[in-house]
Amino acid sequence: MTQNIYDTPDFFKAYSELPRSVHGLDAAPEWPALQSLLPVMGGLRVLDLGCGFGWFCRWARAQGAARVLGVDVSAQMLARAATEPQDEAVSYLRADLETFAPEPQAFDLAYSSLAFHYLADLAGLFRRVQAALAPGGTLVCSVEHPMMTAPMAAGWAQDAAGRPTWPVSDYFDEGPRSTDWLAKGVIKQHRTIETYLDLLSQAGFVLTRLQEWGPSLEQIAAHPEWTMERQRPPFLLLAARRP
Amino acid sequence: MTQNIYDTPDFFKAYSELPRSVHGLDAAPEWPALQSLLPVMGGLRVLDLGCGFGWFCRWARAQGAARVLGVDVSAQMLARAATEPQDEAVSYLRADLETFAPEPQAFDLAYSSLAFHYLADLAGLFRRVQAALAPGGTLVCSVEHPMMTAPMAAGWAQDAAGRPTWPVSDYFDEGPRSTDWLAKGVIKQHRTIETYLDLLSQAGFVLTRLQEWGPSLEQIAAHPEWTMERQRPPFLLLAARRP
Repeated sequence: MTQNIYDTPDFFKAYSELPRSVHGLDAAPEWPALQSLLPVMGGLRVLDLGCGFGWFCRWARAQGAARVLGVDVSAQMLARAATEPQDEAVSYLRADLETFAPEPQAFDLAYSSLAFHYLADLAGLFRRVQAALAPGGTLVCSVEHPMMTAPMAAGWAQDAAGRPTWPVSDYFDEGPRSTDWLAKGVIKQHRTIETYLDLLSQAGFVLTRLQEWGPSLEQIAAHPEWTMERQRPPFLLLAARRP
Repeated sequence: MTQNIYDTPDFFKAYSELPRSVHGLDAAPEWPALQSLLPVMGGLRVLDLGCGFGWFCRWARAQGAARVLGVDVSAQMLARAATEPQDEAVSYLRADLETFAPEPQAFDLAYSSLAFHYLADLAGLFRRVQAALAPGGTLVCSVEHPMMTAPMAAGWAQDAAGRPTWPVSDYFDEGPRSTDWLAKGVIKQHRTIETYLDLLSQAGFVLTRLQEWGPSLEQIAAHPEWTMERQRPPFLLLAARRP
């Protein structure tokens, strides 16, 4: 089973205080880019893999999705999602994405925000999600960019002129990384960009767009604290289609 | 016009002494990976963009290509290519890839090794090359990986434990970089991976494979001096198809 760090008290408390946890999608700086990859939601059957507090599930439904299923391994996150006003077209399921097998051809859109880099068997999940989409269906996801997950000991440094740099190392050594993010010993899986694309292809997906997200200059004007994020991409955004 | 650094005496001399200049394709560690992206060469009309000494042109012909055109901006490199045994099916042309417009639908394969990162108008070249391919034709190319070209001041560093790291910075600031490689002030163009893929797509190509090249553990056993290249990918390899 995936490490369920979200259900450890310290991590959950810290995560709950992040802007995106308090204010939802609009507090996630990559959301406009991710949103631009989504199809028109009207009438779609939507699967959210790693739905957390359910912000995207409720947004999709408000945009006209016919039915939304949010899946997460964290009981605490789903419990908080359940405190929101209920909608019979939105349901939540506790399941581990390492083994979760959605019903074949039951969805038009599979969405996932910053969850896949926790999974050891992403190949298996991609295959099961591809099968769960109707032909012509779409997968849209974000993950931590491989430059972020590569170093065994990740963190900012400075160049000789004192400017911030992001030291990359261990890029071709794919596999688990233990990082201290909100809590000690959070396990993430490092994969190269090549591997992400190969896994999509091997699962029967056709890549339709790859974005390396960084804040725009307009976003930095409003949020100077994001300036460092232009030194290297924090997130990789992928859109793919089941033919 | 592109900076024609290959025709400056110091650069040319240093470049001529690189293993890949002396010994050809088999001395380029990424060649096996690049070769794996190529179609069967028998009967193909082949265009080599930035052909240098013509190693690939001659290899393609030896593999059965019907006709090969090598294009390069460097008079010195073409002059050396011309000293090789002549073959009426292999020809060389001096031209600047910034403006070179090959004949429409005259080729089945366009190939380029480590040349495109010198070009300011890659969008234009991709469009002209797409038009120069017959439907179903293939583009295979290598470029310096965007992690290599991103930093305004590129070079190795060490982490706190003394291990080598490759500091990335300036990733989202696309455009020229002045680097000292074999000579001072070599101008390369930094683009993100997203931009490379978007330019291909906008020119009408469909991406068929993306590889981030690094030496295999077998290659490192034979060439321990390549060990550092596993810390971050030196090259990006792309294969695309004209539908």
